[in-house]
Amino acid sequence: METHVSAHTLIARCALLGAFSEEPDRLTRRYATPPMRQVNQAVTGWMRAAGMTVRQDNIGNLIGRYEAAHPDTPTLLLGSHLDTVRDAGQYDGPLGVLVALACVERLHARDERLPFAIELLAFCDEEGLRYPTTYLGSATVAGAFDPAWRDLTDDAGIPLAEALQAFGGAPAALPQDTWHGGALLGYCEVHIEQGPVLEAAHLPLGLVTAIQGQSRFTLTFRGEAGHAGTVPMHQRHDALCAAAAFVLEVERAASATPGLVATVGQLNVAPGASNVIPGQVTLSLDVRHPDDATRAATHAHLRQRAEHIAATRRGVVEWQLVGEQSATPCSPQLTRLLERAAVAEGYPPRHLASGAGHDAVMMARLTDIAMLFVRCAGGISHSPAEAVAAEDVAAAIAVLERFLALLAEERTPPTTTT
Amino acid sequence: METHVSAHTLIARCALLGAFSEEPDRLTRRYATPPMRQVNQAVTGWMRAAGMTVRQDNIGNLIGRYEAAHPDTPTLLLGSHLDTVRDAGQYDGPLGVLVALACVERLHARDERLPFAIELLAFCDEEGLRYPTTYLGSATVAGAFDPAWRDLTDDAGIPLAEALQAFGGAPAALPQDTWHGGALLGYCEVHIEQGPVLEAAHLPLGLVTAIQGQSRFTLTFRGEAGHAGTVPMHQRHDALCAAAAFVLEVERAASATPGLVATVGQLNVAPGASNVIPGQVTLSLDVRHPDDATRAATHAHLRQRAEHIAATRRGVVEWQLVGEQSATPCSPQLTRLLERAAVAEGYPPRHLASGAGHDAVMMARLTDIAMLFVRCAGGISHSPAEAVAAEDVAAAIAVLERFLALLAEERTPPTTTT
Repeated sequence: METHVSAHTLIARCALLGAFSEEPDRLTRRYATPPMRQVNQAVTGWMRAAGMTVRQDNIGNLIGRYEAAHPDTPTLLLGSHLDTVRDAGQYDGPLGVLVALACVERLHARDERLPFAIELLAFCDEEGLRYPTTYLGSATVAGAFDPAWRDLTDDAGIPLAEALQAFGGAPAALPQDTWHGGALLGYCEVHIEQGPVLEAAHLPLGLVTAIQGQSRFTLTFRGEAGHAGTVPMHQRHDALCAAAAFVLEVERAASATPGLVATVGQLNVAPGASNVIPGQVTLSLDVRHPDDATRAATHAHLRQRAEHIAATRRGVVEWQLVGEQSATPCSPQLTRLLERAAVAEGYPPRHLASGAGHDAVMMARLTDIAMLFVRCAGGISHSPAEAVAAEDVAAAIAVLERFLALLAEERTPPTTTT
Repeated sequence: METHVSAHTLIARCALLGAFSEEPDRLTRRYATPPMRQVNQAVTGWMRAAGMTVRQDNIGNLIGRYEAAHPDTPTLLLGSHLDTVRDAGQYDGPLGVLVALACVERLHARDERLPFAIELLAFCDEEGLRYPTTYLGSATVAGAFDPAWRDLTDDAGIPLAEALQAFGGAPAALPQDTWHGGALLGYCEVHIEQGPVLEAAHLPLGLVTAIQGQSRFTLTFRGEAGHAGTVPMHQRHDALCAAAAFVLEVERAASATPGLVATVGQLNVAPGASNVIPGQVTLSLDVRHPDDATRAATHAHLRQRAEHIAATRRGVVEWQLVGEQSATPCSPQLTRLLERAAVAEGYPPRHLASGAGHDAVMMARLTDIAMLFVRCAGGISHSPAEAVAAEDVAAAIAVLERFLALLAEERTPPTTTT
């Protein structure tokens, strides 16, 4: 009953934070902007009420600390981000911060201390909307902040160093923001799934196995343009037909490889007139898998297929790598603990990979990571239509709370467990 | 030998006319513009020198008449157009006018009159570049000029009626431009092929069986947009995959139907981001065949296939007719005569359909038509790269000259053929 009320309160808090926006009619909250200051203030109030000491680091992360039962204990990091995309929903980021906060509130309400400290990290920039980089907040904590980023400018020409300073930080002090609080137990992040897997499985929660690696390519199929009325079919080198064959190969290869997703999201036809045979097609290819070797094997296969298709149609294909990111596996130990917590709370443990990136990718450079996904309506995210059910939020709170308890149990010397 | 020289002269004339352009660095000659006046003046001079009486009608067609041996004889119409597309080649249109002119010049040089008059029609607008209509010139002669066209405006806002007047015509007198010169033997047009069939067959000339009918459609495949990283393959409704399957169906169906060409020349993906599964694809479909029933059967089949593809992918497709034009068959009698002429001159008779539209389409409303195609380099047209070989032009002149002789023979009472 209490849990249920708290889930509703949490959703109300998400709505409250969602009202802090740079734009009047939609939610857009970029790094180090006035609405980011407002959400940090609101969350600071809740953190303090939950018995946490609160500080803002130089990059702008809001950090609440809930001390352990004893000094000289390790720390468990919890967190997610408070910035948003443009025209965002209310749950991508804030939900994870507020679920963690709810757990600390409950500990505080029971006046309970654990055999480890908790630091709740509310990251200032995960989406990378303002500056041409992502994970500004978690990269700083993980010690991965690149000093060159200080000179990046936003659309208004404001350098990152200046925005950071206006937000209360000191550019020169950034290196001090790298974690230096001693031993870590890991980093655990709760986040909406941003996909339709849990909804289709009728499950409120998911245990993340890994954050998928990603390869992005641009392909150009070249054939020969010609008059749509005068060139017989057997004399054509239609670049769009080659591209179409490749699009279906991508779908076929991805469907045949468990856990793999591959997408052609952009496709441009030249010259692009209804009465002209396409002479050139440029398309994007996005390949993701939780295992790097599988991803590499898939795009190597697709490259072969592309070249085969182009050759049999007497055309050519150019294949260009645009970007690549390795997979980030979650810690099997922490994830097993999350699974035990889920089972203990009565939720079937469903494992899935994360298709989107998260702060946990950066935090994995620092410590073990685990992620708990919460079902979202229709798998929709990055949209005002983003929605979560109160029951699912209650489940997330219960499982994270149980996770903390199990971790505490593990950390407690056997003599004191009676 | 004489023929050969004339072909070179004819090509030089095409180059001369090609210098009359609205743009300094490329050939663009729209309806009723100063360069159209210049080409009409140049052609008028050559027509007069060939013993023709010359007039310009109200729409702006230049008409040269070479009288018959006797009055009260029927008339044979020859012709093509003198306007061009933007950044045009020198042969699309002018070649046909000048081949016909060359034949008349030879009759005149021999002081020969035929048992029919020849009217050489140099049409003022076939390409429809200036006003949103095509065949302005031949439509007027064929009595198909729509009075509403007088109010059409060009890019500069100039109404057609005003442009026509500035060019020397009287809008009110347009109905008088409909053919009223008595009995007709037909209309014969020489034109570059604008396709690669003759080149591939190593033949200089082709006999047109029909001008293909054409159906144009816009299709919209709707699926469901989604995150390229988080939606598993089996949960996707990728509109681009549906469209790709359709593009290959179009190619398959067209390749399986002799004489049919079908083209997807435009394809737009929405939302069109590399990390978003396509939710909607809009594409163009162009289907052409010399037989209307075959064309209709093909697009009915393709529509079924589109709906099947959409349904099996749990999406939908919208199918919209954009435009349709019936096939225009050439006269078997006249074409047989052209074939006899080709064979007599030593050229193998190759029959083919015209994939592009021509003034002959309009003239078919008035009288029997025939068309002789001339091989063009690489099948390229509507481009400065348009090129013809002097030998092929010589062949066209010889065959059209022979065609006139054969037609004269047919028209001459047997008593006088000894």
